[in-house]
Amino acid sequence: MANAILLISCPDKRGITAAVTEFVFRRNGNILHAAQHTDEKAGLFFMRIEWSLEGFSVPRDAISDEFRPLATLFSMDWDLFFSDEKVRTAIFVSRHLHCLHDLLFRHQAGQLPGCDIRGIISNHPDASPVARQWGIEFLEVPVMPDTKIVAEERQRQILRQKGIELVILARYHQILSPEFVAEYPSRIINIHHSFLPAFVGKNPYAQAYEKGVKIIGATSHYVIADLDQGPIIEQDTARIDHRYSVEDLVEIGQDLERVVLYRAVRWHLERKILCRGNKTVVFD
Amino acid sequence: MANAILLISCPDKRGITAAVTEFVFRRNGNILHAAQHTDEKAGLFFMRIEWSLEGFSVPRDAISDEFRPLATLFSMDWDLFFSDEKVRTAIFVSRHLHCLHDLLFRHQAGQLPGCDIRGIISNHPDASPVARQWGIEFLEVPVMPDTKIVAEERQRQILRQKGIELVILARYHQILSPEFVAEYPSRIINIHHSFLPAFVGKNPYAQAYEKGVKIIGATSHYVIADLDQGPIIEQDTARIDHRYSVEDLVEIGQDLERVVLYRAVRWHLERKILCRGNKTVVFD
Amino acid sequence: MANAILLISCPDKRGITAAVTEFVFRRNGNILHAAQHTDEKAGLFFMRIEWSLEGFSVPRDAISDEFRPLATLFSMDWDLFFSDEKVRTAIFVSRHLHCLHDLLFRHQAGQLPGCDIRGIISNHPDASPVARQWGIEFLEVPVMPDTKIVAEERQRQILRQKGIELVILARYHQILSPEFVAEYPSRIINIHHSFLPAFVGKNPYAQAYEKGVKIIGATSHYVIADLDQGPIIEQDTARIDHRYSVEDLVEIGQDLERVVLYRAVRWHLERKILCRGNKTVVFD
Amino acid sequence: MANAILLISCPDKRGITAAVTEFVFRRNGNILHAAQHTDEKAGLFFMRIEWSLEGFSVPRDAISDEFRPLATLFSMDWDLFFSDEKVRTAIFVSRHLHCLHDLLFRHQAGQLPGCDIRGIISNHPDASPVARQWGIEFLEVPVMPDTKIVAEERQRQILRQKGIELVILARYHQILSPEFVAEYPSRIINIHHSFLPAFVGKNPYAQAYEKGVKIIGATSHYVIADLDQGPIIEQDTARIDHRYSVEDLVEIGQDLERVVLYRAVRWHLERKILCRGNKTVVFD
Repeated sequence: MANAILLISCPDKRGITAAVTEFVFRRNGNILHAAQHTDEKAGLFFMRIEWSLEGFSVPRDAISDEFRPLATLFSMDWDLFFSDEKVRTAIFVSRHLHCLHDLLFRHQAGQLPGCDIRGIISNHPDASPVARQWGIEFLEVPVMPDTKIVAEERQRQILRQKGIELVILARYHQILSPEFVAEYPSRIINIHHSFLPAFVGKNPYAQAYEKGVKIIGATSHYVIADLDQGPIIEQDTARIDHRYSVEDLVEIGQDLERVVLYRAVRWHLERKILCRGNKTVVFD
Repeated sequence: MANAILLISCPDKRGITAAVTEFVFRRNGNILHAAQHTDEKAGLFFMRIEWSLEGFSVPRDAISDEFRPLATLFSMDWDLFFSDEKVRTAIFVSRHLHCLHDLLFRHQAGQLPGCDIRGIISNHPDASPVARQWGIEFLEVPVMPDTKIVAEERQRQILRQKGIELVILARYHQILSPEFVAEYPSRIINIHHSFLPAFVGKNPYAQAYEKGVKIIGATSHYVIADLDQGPIIEQDTARIDHRYSVEDLVEIGQDLERVVLYRAVRWHLERKILCRGNKTVVFD
Repeated sequence: MANAILLISCPDKRGITAAVTEFVFRRNGNILHAAQHTDEKAGLFFMRIEWSLEGFSVPRDAISDEFRPLATLFSMDWDLFFSDEKVRTAIFVSRHLHCLHDLLFRHQAGQLPGCDIRGIISNHPDASPVARQWGIEFLEVPVMPDTKIVAEERQRQILRQKGIELVILARYHQILSPEFVAEYPSRIINIHHSFLPAFVGKNPYAQAYEKGVKIIGATSHYVIADLDQGPIIEQDTARIDHRYSVEDLVEIGQDLERVVLYRAVRWHLERKILCRGNKTVVFD
Repeated sequence: MANAILLISCPDKRGITAAVTEFVFRRNGNILHAAQHTDEKAGLFFMRIEWSLEGFSVPRDAISDEFRPLATLFSMDWDLFFSDEKVRTAIFVSRHLHCLHDLLFRHQAGQLPGCDIRGIISNHPDASPVARQWGIEFLEVPVMPDTKIVAEERQRQILRQKGIELVILARYHQILSPEFVAEYPSRIINIHHSFLPAFVGKNPYAQAYEKGVKIIGATSHYVIADLDQGPIIEQDTARIDHRYSVEDLVEIGQDLERVVLYRAVRWHLERKILCRGNKTVVFD
């Protein structure tokens, strides 16, 4: 039996937690997880509540209507999900395949149960054998400076045809147009190979090497129109020292990227992320 | 205006979260933090809820009576605290003074607002200047093998006279008797200088050196009668390698000990720790 | 052009570093890396020196004879390697395939250039598709309590036939006999899914869960006859808390295991590890 | 008996390591530590060698002259130090005293044996009791926008009078003039409370909060004329999440700052740091 998940953000006010938990309890729902967060400075309240539908007195497709009055009362932004819904996902990749491999291995191992991977899209043919190896459809959409608009149009058509709800940029080295980004708000997750906001843009490992930092990092974030500026979901770091070449940084960084992207994707699929302005609340 | 804090553990059942949040809300309490945890395996439910007393309709000293029926209904173990209550604390120390110094500095800097340090007790005179430096009473209670029982009796008298509610063993190298421990259940916090359960007992850094581990650690835990076996509150680790001598481990370890003990003390004072069997739930 | 690598351990004495570096320099060798370590307590000296054979005045197959007098003078234990020699490797695995996958991906990506993977041996058929996926020979050798001796004999025959020099136990859940272990001294690398010496033996994640630790770990080590007691090569840790189930620990631990085993294998292949008693010196 | 320490940087060439180690060995020096690093891209070689003067055939004050020909041969930049030389040090601080306290405690505990702390200089009176507590001279030099030039002149006079060789900015919130900085090249160590190059300048914790990063950091570096741009010596990071306020970041960050500044100071005193352009080689 599936669970229902409510993600809520609204102006902070007394009684929201009590009202929402009571809403579930009165309809015989068994609350499995409830987490809330108050941003006192901004006067905002955030909540994630998950309950079992077993014995819940409201049919699944009537829950939204049932909840709406309460949501209206507290001026909530809210979304209702069900734990057995799979998210139709496309993975974009260029020539570095470690994140792609990692996601596909974890997917097969059952670590991404909410993910329905509908295809791998790349501007290069390199990932084709990997896709075949894992039995996922591969679509090559070459991107040249002069064909970029057309290429992106084709990508977006593919996404629409497949009903894609989540785009993972697993080291995809093309900048998406604002129009593309606007079509998937908080639905495109990118892995950037630096500890943002340090080393935005191209070749962050080379930038880190030049700067002489003693720690490198990786950052997963939702994509917005501004390059590498979207809400950060997860970051991690690793120690380096003067002996490490740029190539060493690349290799060590890949181990960070894998895990940092995976966590972001997983939390997104588990409906654990709320955006507030350009920041995230992650109820991990 | 102070906050009220309820710590609850009970058999898991539908409706506890709703009932408790409603209890607060109906009496006009503004919930500031609410965290719960269900141990599905053990069928246990844990909750910490903190609300502002500002505007709360029940006077402070009547809250317990008001809450009791609900507690009984759900067979709760529960404790009610108030955020402005200071915890009368004694610090025990032997000859390593880094943790003592750290706690006293943080205390003065306002990082331990809930702590009322009533005295430093030691089996050596070394900490006396430190106590003087920070203006805290120092009591030397020498402990010899043949005077141990008498010494401990004196220590316990001091604690009783001062109404001590929390004992911090900040590198105190004497084993407390089961009777002493029994008098302060979940109220004695020890810092052990290893990553427990590895390297129980004496000289854990020397043990770690001999074993050739690549990472060392520190562990803060509540003291029970069994040596170094009490519920773990916090741990942290640091990388080492073959070049590190035992003395190096001691020094690096001290930086871990400081932070790991501090976090445990702070969480205890903030009423964020619940014990379940020999484990802890920390609502940090 | 390849490099020569000397690994040296001997009683500590003045002039060893000078003598060895001079040995290389006088024969026109360009030293690329030189690292030494003195264990003052034990009075032992360890050294790793790597130099380019380009322009070196001694032919590759005559270097050992040329070096021997110096080695004798200082009573050295020593080994000479060349960076272009590939190490014939077998990977043993049972049913958890994440480490196997990780090693094979890294191998293909060029992160294990010194590794010649000659086969995957398992007591279960599960890894067969993975082996096929990566084009590596797979050999199933079922192990039952009553067939263990025969099975191990077959394994050892396979290893001998293939001239295996390194055995990687990538989550192989059978205990090797002392005879097997003795045949490959410092040549069998195991990954143990705990922070050794804590949680030796079976189900370390379940042990960690029961103990209530706040950090879990993974350990790679050379295998000796005593279970999980061999010289530790590498360890890493990750934070957990009371919310994590045993299954969560398993999953998080797998990310540690992957990296910790990989590093050990890589350092072994790069001839960066020296054993001293039951400890390692790793010139990473 | 003291040790001699040579720090060397020069164009990379065959035979440097051999020549230097032989130099020591031929004069009956017992090499205790030798570390070298080649920056292949830049064609530069770096070395640190430490040997016991016990039995060394060259008197301490003649070593420089003895070494000079070799240094000239290889076009070395080099410095000779002795392990028993204490470095005359001044600590600058404003109103945050945690780093000051930490350094003074470690100094007293014997963790900074090479440090001769000659005074604490501050633009505020806050640190005065701390200085008194630890028995160190305190000098208040108020700095106002219109008195800045005069104030700095007084600071520099104090430093000259005391023969200061190392200035530690232990959270000193004034920007030093280029002239001041130029007088102490690679001799002013600052702690910046962010993970540089992210969050340069004022209020880095507030900047980190606004950005919504999931990890914060601290950076110790040598001061150059460009604000927060000097060669990085050490960095460390800590995880945070959406629940942390700016004040929480400040507090957690202080634990990073303490350790990151201490390590930099210690390595500087132990002559383990070499600068190359705007980066450091740290032979830790």
